[in-house]
Amino acid sequence: MTQRCDWLINNLRLATLAEGGQAYGAIQNAALALHGDRILYAGPEKDLPDLAAARQLDGGGRWATPGLVDCHTHLVFGGSRACEFEQRLLGASYEEIARSGGGILSTVQATRAATEDELFDSARARLLRLIAEGVTTVEIKSGYGLTLADETKMLQVARRLGEELPVDVRTTFLGAHALPPEFGTANDYIDALCGDWLPAVAGAGLADAVDVFCEGVGFTPGQCERVFQRAGELGLPIKAHAEQLSDLKGARLAARYGALSADHLEYLAADDVPALAASGTVAVLLPGAFYYLREQQLPPIGTLRQSAVPMAVATDLNPGTSPMASLLSAMNQACVLFRLSPEESLRGATHNGARALGLQDRGQLLAGQRADILLWDIDTPAALSYALNYYRPGGRFVAGEYYDAS
Amino acid sequence: MTQRCDWLINNLRLATLAEGGQAYGAIQNAALALHGDRILYAGPEKDLPDLAAARQLDGGGRWATPGLVDCHTHLVFGGSRACEFEQRLLGASYEEIARSGGGILSTVQATRAATEDELFDSARARLLRLIAEGVTTVEIKSGYGLTLADETKMLQVARRLGEELPVDVRTTFLGAHALPPEFGTANDYIDALCGDWLPAVAGAGLADAVDVFCEGVGFTPGQCERVFQRAGELGLPIKAHAEQLSDLKGARLAARYGALSADHLEYLAADDVPALAASGTVAVLLPGAFYYLREQQLPPIGTLRQSAVPMAVATDLNPGTSPMASLLSAMNQACVLFRLSPEESLRGATHNGARALGLQDRGQLLAGQRADILLWDIDTPAALSYALNYYRPGGRFVAGEYYDAS
Ligand SMILES: [Zn+2]
Ligand SMILES: [Zn+2]
Repeated sequence: MTQRCDWLINNLRLATLAEGGQAYGAIQNAALALHGDRILYAGPEKDLPDLAAARQLDGGGRWATPGLVDCHTHLVFGGSRACEFEQRLLGASYEEIARSGGGILSTVQATRAATEDELFDSARARLLRLIAEGVTTVEIKSGYGLTLADETKMLQVARRLGEELPVDVRTTFLGAHALPPEFGTANDYIDALCGDWLPAVAGAGLADAVDVFCEGVGFTPGQCERVFQRAGELGLPIKAHAEQLSDLKGARLAARYGALSADHLEYLAADDVPALAASGTVAVLLPGAFYYLREQQLPPIGTLRQSAVPMAVATDLNPGTSPMASLLSAMNQACVLFRLSPEESLRGATHNGARALGLQDRGQLLAGQRADILLWDIDTPAALSYALNYYRPGGRFVAGEYYDAS
Repeated sequence: MTQRCDWLINNLRLATLAEGGQAYGAIQNAALALHGDRILYAGPEKDLPDLAAARQLDGGGRWATPGLVDCHTHLVFGGSRACEFEQRLLGASYEEIARSGGGILSTVQATRAATEDELFDSARARLLRLIAEGVTTVEIKSGYGLTLADETKMLQVARRLGEELPVDVRTTFLGAHALPPEFGTANDYIDALCGDWLPAVAGAGLADAVDVFCEGVGFTPGQCERVFQRAGELGLPIKAHAEQLSDLKGARLAARYGALSADHLEYLAADDVPALAASGTVAVLLPGAFYYLREQQLPPIGTLRQSAVPMAVATDLNPGTSPMASLLSAMNQACVLFRLSPEESLRGATHNGARALGLQDRGQLLAGQRADILLWDIDTPAALSYALNYYRPGGRFVAGEYYDAS
């Protein structure tokens, strides 16, 4: 009984990232069959079912991986912080930079001043860099508007990026990113955020999740908890920036509320790891910020690994602490700086990145998954984490749609 | 009296990198005039002489910088070391890796086994990455052949890259890179190298300079000195890999022989810095290797700066310790890891990179210099060192020839 399919790609090596078997879930002499936006078959070429394929492609012995998932970015913003970067290297203190209008509030000001088209154009250029490396799903956070109108503007820009570019965009509302100058106290701000803003953003369907910055320079655990509760009432999943610069037990709190992910985690205590494991919360590692800030404190990778907490790797692309439009660089940094294996790194930027977004339908090359597939001219999947700026996908499928490398 | 010129580009901001004036040698509201492969005029638009230009270009307010110079690479090689990178992260010791055929000798083996065309194709892919970022001059070393025939093959591939791609290639003979298995002792090898190989390579016009690896795992200062003497007799300028992993006083030795550059220098003693200053030897900083090897010992940047030793920045692109085809990343690492200012970093990848190659005719936007020019859509030249994988030149001139960004 012959089944129809849209694409048949033979002569491949698959890094399926299926667990429990070969490293990378590798299958040699393999083939993929796609139908619509899904994978119909991923396995040995010799076991291919009887298929009538509308189109065929010779994989040329290349490796196929799932599309990359960048699960933590702030890639919509106004302005640049290059001058601040320079001032700091020329010896200016944080206080001097703040006085001269630098820091996160300078990005808030520039983001508010930008039109939606201006934000779109600058974000598009950065997103094209990620796409060129193989990103097929990207998360984008708000958090530089800090008025309801400007947060809405950021999220609308994020949605529009997903409509106009061959990438699936997941949006996250991060109103609790910094205290906007219009509010006297953080508690007042959280009142407004939970009272009016969250329902408005949720009602408009603009946010796929809700995030907080739980930190001395951000919001207290108590304030973050109010945001989590309100998000829960509105049916939105939650995430947290936690334990980046100090141990406020934000990750434990996030786990208690069933967070999709807890992100950064340099100061996570080993005895808080079981809570993440129990709640299925993904630990999102952001080595770009670690690198730019020249941090010394490493996340408790060994404990996370032993406790089988899924580890994701993302860029944290933002203008202040991680102006890095390269998920492959983050994967490399995760190996060099955090001592992940190349397989953990690739899994972190595919399967576990997807899990950090609550997406079960992508990140592995398995029948039934979304057909987000990259073809690479490499000898081993380890090459992707090993080299900086060598490799780009030599062709890709995004939701079953084929894009040539050229 | 109207003068003819090939190109007139107006509406520019110039980062001329002229010394002693504005940061970056900046000139606002500027113009460039080019004739043949040279810059005829670089200065304020209002002071333009009377010119009849064959072609005109509106700079659109963009920043123009000199073409980038990557003055230290090993970009011609066979094979990959991705598996070794992975093994190390999975816990293998250096001895286990050496036993399983890893390390530099695995690259020697793969380079010897590769045909000239194979070497050319793989090197071309890496060089295209550098070119895409704005590199217009690149140095390429031999050192993975370690027979006269294979060293010759590497240098011929390097020359051919320069003939076929829009980049000026400078070759360096690095026979004294590692001890080839055919020789019993390093002294025997240096005998052969000085006796036959160096004259052969020099006679064939294949090397623009001669380099050594002065290190416990490389060659002793005494052995390096013999190479320097022979190079001097043959009229070839010298360079040295020195003080990367230990302080053998290789930089001081190189300075005594008037070396163009001493490279790496993490373990350079502060009191050896004046010798470099006196000989005009450029200190080439290679933060990529520092990053990949997770070194802790920083080069004596402050002392080099105070002593006005010119500092260059390069990729060290090689398969073992710096598989990084990105000079912009090296510039960023020079700032983040070595605390160079963005201006020092840009000067290191242009003017001082050129000086490290003995080239006086490029690296600044001044009348009489080679017309290697990049146009960037950025707000400040600091942006080039600030961000990872954001920016690419939006057009370039290489020896006066225009290349559109598309
Ligand atoms: Zn973040
Ligand atoms: Zn080197």
